[in-house]
Amino acid sequence: MLATGLAVAAVHAAKRGYSWSEIDRLIARGDVKGKLAKEDLPTPALIVELDAFEANVKKMSEHVLGKGRALRPHAKTHKCPEIAMRLIRSGAVGACAAKLSEAEALAAGGVTGLLITTAVVGKNKIERAVAFARKRPETIFSVDNAQNVKDLNDAAGAGKVRLNAAIDLHVGGRTGIVSGAPALALGESIQSMPNLKLAGIQAYAGQASHTVGFEARRRVSREAMAPAVELRQALEQKGIPCPLVTGGSTGTYNIDTDMDGITELQPGSFVFMDIDYNRIGGQSGEVYNDFQNSLFVLTTVVSKPKDEMAIVDGGLKAFSTDRAFPPQWRGGAELPYAFAGDEHGRLSLKGGKQVSVGDRLEFIIPHCDPSVNLYDRLFAVRGEQVEAVWRIAARGLSQ
Amino acid sequence: MLATGLAVAAVHAAKRGYSWSEIDRLIARGDVKGKLAKEDLPTPALIVELDAFEANVKKMSEHVLGKGRALRPHAKTHKCPEIAMRLIRSGAVGACAAKLSEAEALAAGGVTGLLITTAVVGKNKIERAVAFARKRPETIFSVDNAQNVKDLNDAAGAGKVRLNAAIDLHVGGRTGIVSGAPALALGESIQSMPNLKLAGIQAYAGQASHTVGFEARRRVSREAMAPAVELRQALEQKGIPCPLVTGGSTGTYNIDTDMDGITELQPGSFVFMDIDYNRIGGQSGEVYNDFQNSLFVLTTVVSKPKDEMAIVDGGLKAFSTDRAFPPQWRGGAELPYAFAGDEHGRLSLKGGKQVSVGDRLEFIIPHCDPSVNLYDRLFAVRGEQVEAVWRIAARGLSQ
Repeated sequence: MLATGLAVAAVHAAKRGYSWSEIDRLIARGDVKGKLAKEDLPTPALIVELDAFEANVKKMSEHVLGKGRALRPHAKTHKCPEIAMRLIRSGAVGACAAKLSEAEALAAGGVTGLLITTAVVGKNKIERAVAFARKRPETIFSVDNAQNVKDLNDAAGAGKVRLNAAIDLHVGGRTGIVSGAPALALGESIQSMPNLKLAGIQAYAGQASHTVGFEARRRVSREAMAPAVELRQALEQKGIPCPLVTGGSTGTYNIDTDMDGITELQPGSFVFMDIDYNRIGGQSGEVYNDFQNSLFVLTTVVSKPKDEMAIVDGGLKAFSTDRAFPPQWRGGAELPYAFAGDEHGRLSLKGGKQVSVGDRLEFIIPHCDPSVNLYDRLFAVRGEQVEAVWRIAARGLSQ
Repeated sequence: MLATGLAVAAVHAAKRGYSWSEIDRLIARGDVKGKLAKEDLPTPALIVELDAFEANVKKMSEHVLGKGRALRPHAKTHKCPEIAMRLIRSGAVGACAAKLSEAEALAAGGVTGLLITTAVVGKNKIERAVAFARKRPETIFSVDNAQNVKDLNDAAGAGKVRLNAAIDLHVGGRTGIVSGAPALALGESIQSMPNLKLAGIQAYAGQASHTVGFEARRRVSREAMAPAVELRQALEQKGIPCPLVTGGSTGTYNIDTDMDGITELQPGSFVFMDIDYNRIGGQSGEVYNDFQNSLFVLTTVVSKPKDEMAIVDGGLKAFSTDRAFPPQWRGGAELPYAFAGDEHGRLSLKGGKQVSVGDRLEFIIPHCDPSVNLYDRLFAVRGEQVEAVWRIAARGLSQ
């Protein structure tokens, strides 16, 4: 550790003192390795620690592939073509995208094997979907109602392309057609359409992924996913091939891979982790630490109005606020953070920990997906060095 | 009303059926007036209704200017150069920016008279500030500690520019130097620096802006702002000119303009309004309706899993979540919305209101500033027509 620390310091000492325009030029050229350090970054900045990130990718890939399942990680977490490509190089068959526009941005970055997990609704969007399928014919589109099946089929016919369709099954609290007869009828309808091909079943059970306690989570996930497996059997009994049953999450990755009939997993958050997932509990112990926290927001102390209060430059626009808990200083509980408006966070110094204006502090994020969606760039760091800058190309693309 | 509705429908009928690529081309050319309607927009989309927006701008300008105060509206709300320029054309002296990078983006869009309300801390940022001041010498920089004053002065000297500095006074729960002797000493320090010029006092009392009830709000704001007025007097008694005392918000605009010694107001949210501000109560009545809701998120119903449940395509990435209340359907209370993850919202249809997949629904936003920060474009509409597309150029720029 010490030796590495010294080496890093030595490398960086020679590079200090970049101007902002020089940093911008480095970033634009993608030429940052060995030239840019964390201390050069403007804050608030979103950083990913590569050692932890790479370990997370390796662990998930080895587990899922080792269990004989396919891995199609959900890109709504990271929205980075670079990360999707790294996952593909580690054995993933592609990536999930929440919406069509997210898929378009990922594909523009070279990503193949896309599954769009929300139905494409509306004339303009369906037209875009057909144009997209012409370029990426392996893309799978989720559908959950009969009219949408007809609309997709008509547009595909006009566009002279055959679309892969997955039945979005309602196994959680969001989209999807209810299981049993309605879902089976939808499958038959897809099968009967000349310009559609049934790819399989999309089944995401959000209520399972964040159930606290491993045994409770296993129960919830198995119960939620059972109708997907049953639907597949029912379709195949009718002679309708259904190669794919895809679902699961970071919280259920080691539950769903033990369930017969689930062919593919689509976890997202494992690449980064967040406080929310840390709290769900693991197989042993209260903290879910199967994957490491790799994502942090780097801030600067910009004001110290009183002895017991410091203000950092990250607030509601730097962290998502959809969870009941605030960001956590990665150094521990001594610097509790409270949101102080759009642009600032307030640290209590009553615990005795001192900070000064100009100090840089890193925070663990309450919920990774919507936090990443606030940033255009992700700085990939190893120790103090920035190795790469990844474009969050699908940021804001929820259409 | 009916005649206008028919006219709008007639105009649009001739334009229907744009492809997505055609819409993109229209938007890129800025050539949308009379050619693009709300129904053409991909969802979720952020829209501003021009009639309400223009009335809000007019009302605030007339009130503040009529009271003999300057208006420098805070651009952290809208982050649009186009809106800042419209406010300037309505009499504003410029715009406030929360951070340096926000100011840079606004200036690139032509905005002048910028006041940066957070101290610029760190070597690289200070260097950028100096470069910025060379291009926009009228810019005012907030400072709240002695070392930062020295750092700015040194950098300004090296850059051969004189910076305008405002004392950021701690009148709320965020940044700023405490009032009394420390603030006075900071003012003297600024005055003594060869490369700085004291512009005045920046004093934002966030606790006042959202105090519920007009009388309570008046009390809180007057108490919070009194030290700023006193500091100005103390500086002038020492022979230090202090032309500017700037602060206030949409919640206190008609309170602070009656307070002697406050020279300038910096409200932001009045251009759009949100549920949060609707709840603070007005001078008469429980709803604060001095300004109109002009900002909405347009969504599409993408799934209807059950008779009593519909899913729209706007979730945690389409609305800010920093308030305790969810988005509200603008049609009333019949379609209560609950967040359903990153990408979706769940509507209860138990009230009897029916919707179908493909229906488009508009929602009032809980808190405008962080919601706007999720979007790249703001569609400016009049009735059903899109009149303009405004770039949210400073989106994500909290650095």
